[in-house]
Amino acid sequence: RSGEMAKSTQLIDNEVFRAYATYTAIVLMKMKLMSLVTAYYRLTRKAFVNPEDVASFGKGDSAKKYLRTDPDVERVRRGHLNDLENIVPFVGIGLLYALSGPEPSTALLHFRIFTGARILHTFAYLIPLPQPSRALSWAVGYAVTFSMAYKVLKTVLLL
Amino acid sequence: RSGEMAKSTQLIDNEVFRAYATYTAIVLMKMKLMSLVTAYYRLTRKAFVNPEDVASFGKGDSAKKYLRTDPDVERVRRGHLNDLENIVPFVGIGLLYALSGPEPSTALLHFRIFTGARILHTFAYLIPLPQPSRALSWAVGYAVTFSMAYKVLKTVLLL
Amino acid sequence: RSGEMAKSTQLIDNEVFRAYATYTAIVLMKMKLMSLVTAYYRLTRKAFVNPEDVASFGKGDSAKKYLRTDPDVERVRRGHLNDLENIVPFVGIGLLYALSGPEPSTALLHFRIFTGARILHTFAYLIPLPQPSRALSWAVGYAVTFSMAYKVLKTVLLL
Repeated sequence: RSGEMAKSTQLIDNEVFRAYATYTAIVLMKMKLMSLVTAYYRLTRKAFVNPEDVASFGKGDSAKKYLRTDPDVERVRRGHLNDLENIVPFVGIGLLYALSGPEPSTALLHFRIFTGARILHTFAYLIPLPQPSRALSWAVGYAVTFSMAYKVLKTVLLL
Repeated sequence: RSGEMAKSTQLIDNEVFRAYATYTAIVLMKMKLMSLVTAYYRLTRKAFVNPEDVASFGKGDSAKKYLRTDPDVERVRRGHLNDLENIVPFVGIGLLYALSGPEPSTALLHFRIFTGARILHTFAYLIPLPQPSRALSWAVGYAVTFSMAYKVLKTVLLL
Repeated sequence: RSGEMAKSTQLIDNEVFRAYATYTAIVLMKMKLMSLVTAYYRLTRKAFVNPEDVASFGKGDSAKKYLRTDPDVERVRRGHLNDLENIVPFVGIGLLYALSGPEPSTALLHFRIFTGARILHTFAYLIPLPQPSRALSWAVGYAVTFSMAYKVLKTVLLL
């Protein structure tokens, strides 16, 4: 079984795949941090959505007033959803791209630009920075993902 | 290192994996197009959600009136979320399914039906077509994903 | 071509990868079941969002009254979105983790704890159980994912 194990870990020794794994871990963890930022704003702004979440604040109206939306909470949630819409496709397309045999330097460029763009997007959304900061950082990540998808389809197309 | 590289790209030479990569790239790009449709409706319906997005329309109430929801925008957003709920699991399950050694013709059938169903679902949602168009196209994609998951669990089950 | 096929399916013979595939299939199917629970509550509570979904209830106001939100429906939808935010990163990070050559017993522990935590989270959300049931089950899944990401970055880091 150790022979099999050795074989199955060869993928992780490949340079492009290692870069893919590194940047995927980074952007997915960045996405998950949005949950903590949401929790932080919910607690500091006292803005909750589930009755059981405010039960410790007392009974009746004294607790119910904390069941409300807050602009800061909603902003982080929109940023989180935007991450789901953009980072998750990057993870799927990026895996296929890494396996499609791209030039290592080209692949690194794609991964780095995407990761940088998504980190900028988060700052642009949360601070917030004036537009078109957020629009541009979103568009760069979007274009990188389509560039990778184009390479994948050019390499493997089998309908 | 070129030997490693050659090995790591063998997966992409496998017929089933190539079909998986092709259809995954297609459905993920289809999902990402929902962002552009949302942006299109936001701009044409002038319906935005972030104050910084309407800053160019002027100050005060002249800009604030564009911070509103629009039925067309919300419809596309629901279609996008439905894609996240259905296409993303397909990508994950499909990868395991492709690696579980299915018959190439069976695998192709799964990928093609899923992709067709999700494209139909998008048209059914955005036009919109009368029900049960959207419900049925959703159900077909759902059933295909469970069929693949069943094959994966039958092949690899290790709890 | 059969030689290639044999090689490409070796991954699925690896013990850690088989465990990963098993638990990934389980949690993704669990996530997809949220759609059925949502549909069940929409039908029993008669709470819909699209005009075409209530067309069969008649015309005008007799149908429009079913275009409304319902607390049970919204609760399931929040649980579903929380699954997207947490299970999807697990699938991506878990794949890289499985390929990074972890101890099989350690890997199994990660996969089992995550899966158990997310099933508990669903029950805690839908019943609902008093807090901190939901918060704790969420935190356990969150910590497991970061633990796997840490192992991935320690093994492959290539920026």
